Amino acid sequence: MVRSRLSSEALAAGVLARERATLARAITLTESTLASHQVLAQEVLQRLLPRTGKAMRVGISGVPGVGKSTFIESLGLRLIERGHRVAVLAVDPSSQRTGGSILGDKTRMARLSLLGEAFIRPSPTGGHLGGVTRVTRESMLLCEAAGFDVILVETVGVGQSETVVADMVDCYLVLMLPGAGDELQGIKKGVLELADIIAVNKADGSTLDDARQARAAYQRALSILQPAGSWKPLALTCSAVSGDGLEDLWEQVRAHRRQLIDSGELVARREQQLVRWMWSMVDQMVLASLRDRSELQPLIMESEQAVRQQKMTALQAANALIKAWRGSHTHPVSSPEPTPRAP
Amino acid sequence: MVRSRLSSEALAAGVLARERATLARAITLTESTLASHQVLAQEVLQRLLPRTGKAMRVGISGVPGVGKSTFIESLGLRLIERGHRVAVLAVDPSSQRTGGSILGDKTRMARLSLLGEAFIRPSPTGGHLGGVTRVTRESMLLCEAAGFDVILVETVGVGQSETVVADMVDCYLVLMLPGAGDELQGIKKGVLELADIIAVNKADGSTLDDARQARAAYQRALSILQPAGSWKPLALTCSAVSGDGLEDLWEQVRAHRRQLIDSGELVARREQQLVRWMWSMVDQMVLASLRDRSELQPLIMESEQAVRQQKMTALQAANALIKAWRGSHTHPVSSPEPTPRAP
Repeated sequence: MVRSRLSSEALAAGVLARERATLARAITLTESTLASHQVLAQEVLQRLLPRTGKAMRVGISGVPGVGKSTFIESLGLRLIERGHRVAVLAVDPSSQRTGGSILGDKTRMARLSLLGEAFIRPSPTGGHLGGVTRVTRESMLLCEAAGFDVILVETVGVGQSETVVADMVDCYLVLMLPGAGDELQGIKKGVLELADIIAVNKADGSTLDDARQARAAYQRALSILQPAGSWKPLALTCSAVSGDGLEDLWEQVRAHRRQLIDSGELVARREQQLVRWMWSMVDQMVLASLRDRSELQPLIMESEQAVRQQKMTALQAANALIKAWRGSHTHPVSSPEPTPRAP
Repeated sequence: MVRSRLSSEALAAGVLARERATLARAITLTESTLASHQVLAQEVLQRLLPRTGKAMRVGISGVPGVGKSTFIESLGLRLIERGHRVAVLAVDPSSQRTGGSILGDKTRMARLSLLGEAFIRPSPTGGHLGGVTRVTRESMLLCEAAGFDVILVETVGVGQSETVVADMVDCYLVLMLPGAGDELQGIKKGVLELADIIAVNKADGSTLDDARQARAAYQRALSILQPAGSWKPLALTCSAVSGDGLEDLWEQVRAHRRQLIDSGELVARREQQLVRWMWSMVDQMVLASLRDRSELQPLIMESEQAVRQQKMTALQAANALIKAWRGSHTHPVSSPEPTPRAP
């Protein structure tokens, strides 16, 4: 239960004091759809903003079966040995369908979840990707205020989730399965463009050679892309099980970070992320008020159908939708949220 | 001059009768920002919609210097020899800055522009990409109604223009320059994901070998991407000057089309394009009414700054913007348009 009588001041203080229960409570507040909780959550965030932004934010994506949880646990344990405090968050829009969450079961990371220097939070369940994204972004800020200096944001890569995760982290890591020739796992469209580092996992035992061949193929592909910044994306191999390559991998994450800092790109990147985030919230709120208005659903279906069948131009259909929307313009905007979940 | 007294019926009839002057006039109407012209243009389009959709829609992108105009002219002349009627359109958001247009100078395609079976229309100048895109999409429909069975949509690939062009055509062709090893021209991020066919131009004379090496490199990169549909993107070489490879290239465009038709993907792809287009028009109209409202500009700048400096959360800033927008909610939406240009 969120005891709403707790003031934003007390909550912020508890988070800064690294109280796990208070951190969890603050995150639950951001997930709540109750207006009072939303207001409180934003007050807490505003108090904590000056204390955020210090962490290394690393996105990790990979298809089911690539060994993501083993990788994150193995990497997380090593980072904690080095003195880091590691938070693991997730963006999993699919959990709205399954009702579960890719990180719901902490036994997936049994050892990591037992450590005080680790904080594992499942993806918010349900709701639009926009709502899930907002909660994860805000959870990241809360974890940073609570002194976690490494944030690992996991995604299964459903729909646009890779893009939104890449747009909330400093470094985007893509895990791939070993494979050679025809068995080479194709890279999902869009991911190659986002990856700062591609790590071919399971570079051990009988799949070691395939992993090396896959790495070479991915490296060739990366090499002909114009890098978005000064960093040249690279591909390497690792084994989450044996731990081979994890040190090198983290060294590359740190090299990537140093380069972003030295070039001034880190500051610029984060500022751009924040401004894009603001506008995406505006977009989501405004458009959700049109797309989700129940009385507009029949017209939306008709319009899409008429456009599909070329009975109307897109502009005519768009104008009709907006006209109807303005007619029903009582509460034009609402914040994109996950479905209610009692805090 | 648009003689507005011309009825939509007369204009539609003129377009169907393949009158070039009427086609040009109808396109100019869609470019006009006058409300009366807009209404008339939409009436014309609605009359013609049943007669559209028959053409092969091919997007062609490539950096300046890749030889795009020579390529289009050379390909266009060949297609006309085969009995096709070819319209060349363009999406060039940069023309709003230069005031010119990548196709403004028809001498770029001197021979093609002289033929009655060819119709070359410059990119609409000025305005948002959304306005430019709408005009080009609607021009494409008008050209189809006027019996042009091949539509070539050119883009220089500024900003998001590749994406919007790819989303209005059946087949997306990317022209690349020859190069090997370090001189290999990097593929702009995102483009590799869109390309159905990559053609390395200037596969002639001293650059033939480099062109072949580049082709091989691009082919390798394409081969490890998961294709979005049943078509496996491929890379080939050609020479717009000598004409070498143009027949093969067009054969691949036709093979791509046959495959989309046989798999049912062509119908699905076009329907999805239309629905996405409708929603993008809604998005543009609604959000333009917020982003472009002059009285909101100071608040927009403040909000972006506050978010950048982490003085506000994105949600707080978004809420503030939307609140102010609702306060100034006189004419919430307007169609995204190129800057006025006297029809």
